[in-house]
Amino acid sequence: MPVNLTAPNPQDVLPVPGVKLGIAMAGVRKANRRDLVVVTLAEGSHVAGVFTRNRFCAAPVQLCREHLAAKAGTRAMLINTGNANAGTGEDGRSRALSTCVALARHLGIAPEQVLPFSTGVIMETLPNDRIEAGLPAAIADLAADHWVQAAEAIMTTDTLPKAASRRVQIDGKTVTVTGIAKGAGMIRPNMATMLGFVATDAVIAPALMQHLVREAADDSFNRITIDGDTSTNDSFVLIATAQAGHAPITRLDSEAGALLRDAVIAVAQQLAQAIVRDGEGATKFITVQVDGGASEDECRQVAYAIAHSPLVKTAFYASDPNLGRILAAVGYAGIADLDQTGIELFLDDVHVATAGGRHPDYREEDGQRVMKQSEITVRVDLQRGDASAAVWTCDLSIDYVKINADYRS
Amino acid sequence: MPVNLTAPNPQDVLPVPGVKLGIAMAGVRKANRRDLVVVTLAEGSHVAGVFTRNRFCAAPVQLCREHLAAKAGTRAMLINTGNANAGTGEDGRSRALSTCVALARHLGIAPEQVLPFSTGVIMETLPNDRIEAGLPAAIADLAADHWVQAAEAIMTTDTLPKAASRRVQIDGKTVTVTGIAKGAGMIRPNMATMLGFVATDAVIAPALMQHLVREAADDSFNRITIDGDTSTNDSFVLIATAQAGHAPITRLDSEAGALLRDAVIAVAQQLAQAIVRDGEGATKFITVQVDGGASEDECRQVAYAIAHSPLVKTAFYASDPNLGRILAAVGYAGIADLDQTGIELFLDDVHVATAGGRHPDYREEDGQRVMKQSEITVRVDLQRGDASAAVWTCDLSIDYVKINADYRS
Repeated sequence: MPVNLTAPNPQDVLPVPGVKLGIAMAGVRKANRRDLVVVTLAEGSHVAGVFTRNRFCAAPVQLCREHLAAKAGTRAMLINTGNANAGTGEDGRSRALSTCVALARHLGIAPEQVLPFSTGVIMETLPNDRIEAGLPAAIADLAADHWVQAAEAIMTTDTLPKAASRRVQIDGKTVTVTGIAKGAGMIRPNMATMLGFVATDAVIAPALMQHLVREAADDSFNRITIDGDTSTNDSFVLIATAQAGHAPITRLDSEAGALLRDAVIAVAQQLAQAIVRDGEGATKFITVQVDGGASEDECRQVAYAIAHSPLVKTAFYASDPNLGRILAAVGYAGIADLDQTGIELFLDDVHVATAGGRHPDYREEDGQRVMKQSEITVRVDLQRGDASAAVWTCDLSIDYVKINADYRS
Repeated sequence: MPVNLTAPNPQDVLPVPGVKLGIAMAGVRKANRRDLVVVTLAEGSHVAGVFTRNRFCAAPVQLCREHLAAKAGTRAMLINTGNANAGTGEDGRSRALSTCVALARHLGIAPEQVLPFSTGVIMETLPNDRIEAGLPAAIADLAADHWVQAAEAIMTTDTLPKAASRRVQIDGKTVTVTGIAKGAGMIRPNMATMLGFVATDAVIAPALMQHLVREAADDSFNRITIDGDTSTNDSFVLIATAQAGHAPITRLDSEAGALLRDAVIAVAQQLAQAIVRDGEGATKFITVQVDGGASEDECRQVAYAIAHSPLVKTAFYASDPNLGRILAAVGYAGIADLDQTGIELFLDDVHVATAGGRHPDYREEDGQRVMKQSEITVRVDLQRGDASAAVWTCDLSIDYVKINADYRS
């Protein structure tokens, strides 16, 4: 059961002028499953992306990087679920390229103008023939209002589609930002696939796109233990179709730039949090806030150590305020000169530990009360400086193991 | 159910001249539970230890380090289960010291000659009064053949006591090496407590002790994802009572030194593997062997990435040859210049992946056959050099979550 998350209402997921989405059943892994999405982008669109740094990055990720580097002007995206086309060697690459060539031929564009994305099981051969056979149906289905259907078609172990929209006024023009995403296992989702696509009709200088997509990722998907260093397929793409008719945004610190940036980050954060809320087997949504660090990096390091600890996560699942497990995670986070006697620990409003030991006023029943909530903030103060960082995570439940033990069956 | 592990036969766990062990019920956490162990060492014994590098190291670990550094000649050890005395601040330290003072008074030695060890729940106050009240009973119980009883008394979530012995002939004298250990959760046991104690009556130059205990740890406990960097209480202690009557060993690369070293390492490895075999919820014993690395460090890094991956571990639990998850873990292990097209992957004798992709001869049923075994070797060849490293781990089962969610109830 997702934690405080419901399926998006199609009326709330706003079309973005210049973007059309078409869905089809290609039978990639299972029959009668919408598993193929084609997205077309108006001429003049600008696209930027951030991708996994996993050295075993999937074939489609390699092609995305190359096609973006070619600066041919991205005009289409091709997304399949059911097969990640990762760990597939040279053969996987040529199969991914073959699907780009096929879509390009249908649309009358160049293969480098297509970005391919795959999600699903690793190390199995991509059935590119079935994907290519499914393209006409997906193209026939292209429509501006198919965002939610696309969000459904890219799911793997997600239980709900994930979509979000914002509207802002820039120079008297309405600008839309809409995104969809799919998630992953939630202990360390880095091995599953996270895909996120956010589109806007804003007019933005191409030079700003990479900066904006990186900033949005750092404030959203990179806060959910999907840290970009680790998965084979993780991809987050930002599209600007330049259809909104306002004067081009040339600086992100201008008024118009800030409006757009805030809207893009808000959409990305909503999607990222939705991934955690729908984490495999999740029963709790946990914010890990680390303050008082000497640097943002060390705060993040401590936050991840807590968020990744199976013992911490099982304690949350059990609503058991076994909070020493959190202190232990702080201790092994890798800060060599950490002074344990400086550590303060809070669970929402409850002051659990002070000076590295149990707070004299802390009562087990107060910890228990917070642990029973479905939304919990763990706050650690390192008392070493002024930096802060937060990550979002979920608990580790019996269902997590069941889901991942059964994933392929 | 432990994986191919049975309780030690008391006849096979050999006394070590100069070492006596006494057990008592102190009611540290639960009544009517043998939870307190006193160990006495003959005068002239040499002791060396390796301890957790967790910055939140427990109070007893701090005292162990200080007491060893004082070079007062260790004459006793005091071990309790039920409470880790970690995350307890200055108060925890003075309570641990109080137990050392009490035992020293009973034995007529100095407090610095006592090493304290605690295991159990973190961030709860150590009931040192109950421990001190239990000392006379433990002392009255002191006997050379109480190793197995001591192994039982230090257990936490272990289901079986862990003990091992070897005998070697040095200069015509019989030398005994006997050890006991307790284990921990097995996804990342670093937050639970691993305790290991190995004693020998060998005569060994004190200067060699630290080297030998470090080498034995590196070849045993540091290979089981208890990497010494991370837990609050992990401790491994080597004792030499110098009672065997042979000429002192002054070099580990001498014939006698090698015999002793091999015996100590064999005992430590058997104990370390027993910890994995009795890992929380474990159903499989997995050796992760990484060859062809540019350095032993990078091999170890890759091996740990595989051994720590919840997705890999759940796949083993399910006997599901979803082996792309292993490739993905190799990819995110943090080797920046890793060339995925060089990676070879084997599951026992089955060649699963070659050149970073599925091996053309690999058949799912072959992977399935190996995955169903209770003992599995995963071998990765990085093809970058001549270095190797291996770690031992277990799978991640539904029972792991159950055990850790219920640990305190």
